[in-house]
Amino acid sequence: MSVRSAERGVQLGRHDGGLVARPVPVLELDFGGVVGDRHHGITRPADSRQARFYPRGTMIRNRRQLTLVSAEELAEVAQRLGVPEVRAEWLGANLLVEGLPDLSTLPPGTRLLFSSGAGLVCEAVNQPCRLPAQVVQQHFPESSAQSQFVRAAFGRRGIAATVERPAPIRVSDRATVVPPELHTSFG
Amino acid sequence: MSVRSAERGVQLGRHDGGLVARPVPVLELDFGGVVGDRHHGITRPADSRQARFYPRGTMIRNRRQLTLVSAEELAEVAQRLGVPEVRAEWLGANLLVEGLPDLSTLPPGTRLLFSSGAGLVCEAVNQPCRLPAQVVQQHFPESSAQSQFVRAAFGRRGIAATVERPAPIRVSDRATVVPPELHTSFG
Repeated sequence: MSVRSAERGVQLGRHDGGLVARPVPVLELDFGGVVGDRHHGITRPADSRQARFYPRGTMIRNRRQLTLVSAEELAEVAQRLGVPEVRAEWLGANLLVEGLPDLSTLPPGTRLLFSSGAGLVCEAVNQPCRLPAQVVQQHFPESSAQSQFVRAAFGRRGIAATVERPAPIRVSDRATVVPPELHTSFG
Repeated sequence: MSVRSAERGVQLGRHDGGLVARPVPVLELDFGGVVGDRHHGITRPADSRQARFYPRGTMIRNRRQLTLVSAEELAEVAQRLGVPEVRAEWLGANLLVEGLPDLSTLPPGTRLLFSSGAGLVCEAVNQPCRLPAQVVQQHFPESSAQSQFVRAAFGRRGIAATVERPAPIRVSDRATVVPPELHTSFG
């Protein structure tokens, strides 16, 4: 397994409620995710995203503790929408990372190891939905973000992650990306 | 995402201690893994497998709650070693699955959904180590399993998994395999 290093800064947000995240100077983590965030928890009720797998409301392990987006991917989404910017907090993201233009292509099992000691594990790609589209539209009323966001953001919407090792994450912390080890078929 | 179905039976084991698993009629699961198993827990101290990522002894989330092996893969390992069989319990496996000859190639994030309602998530491939080699050697003293096991078992050693939704798993339960959703790079 090779460890790929990248310099990047993080911008941090916490959900107290609603979609938009409130900027905070530090993300305090424990094994349930971001302390004080509305997505925090070791377990959670299954929602529409898991409807194919578990009845809605079933208690399942919380694999969507926090979400990360990439500055480079959001810039691309903004360009496609013809708007000046798409901010991480409008999408409800907890972490905005810089220097990782392929964030949304990281497979589940990828580790993100922060200089603070925090370790996150990629659990799934985020699917763009219509709620952030409305927020972008509100900021740029002349745009057609409302109707075009989902298409523009597909494959650039970041990832959902869980905490493997808790430690505080601060703006300007650096991280390394460790791909999961895979076996391919053998003859 | 396509859901691939496969018929298979399971054979179950629980670790009370030591490497070899004791056969049990049912695996009782909770969010820590197999109830009563020595690998059970929401968290665990980092060991030599995570030494590249976290200092040994650091408390991390337990992503190795239970291990699964494939009947077809173990048959292939036995054939390569020239021995009549390699049993799941000798390898300390919790679940022996049938009808899934590519178990060890499943990427992290793959779901295994059992007819009982239990949901497991693949976390990592298992790496063959020398401890099971000794057990196989003890059962077939004339073989050269001791020296050849690691090579023969590479890529066929099964997976480590966690519980996403707890429910009891019994012998002859069936399961479906759901690949994780991935995004590839976009032009």
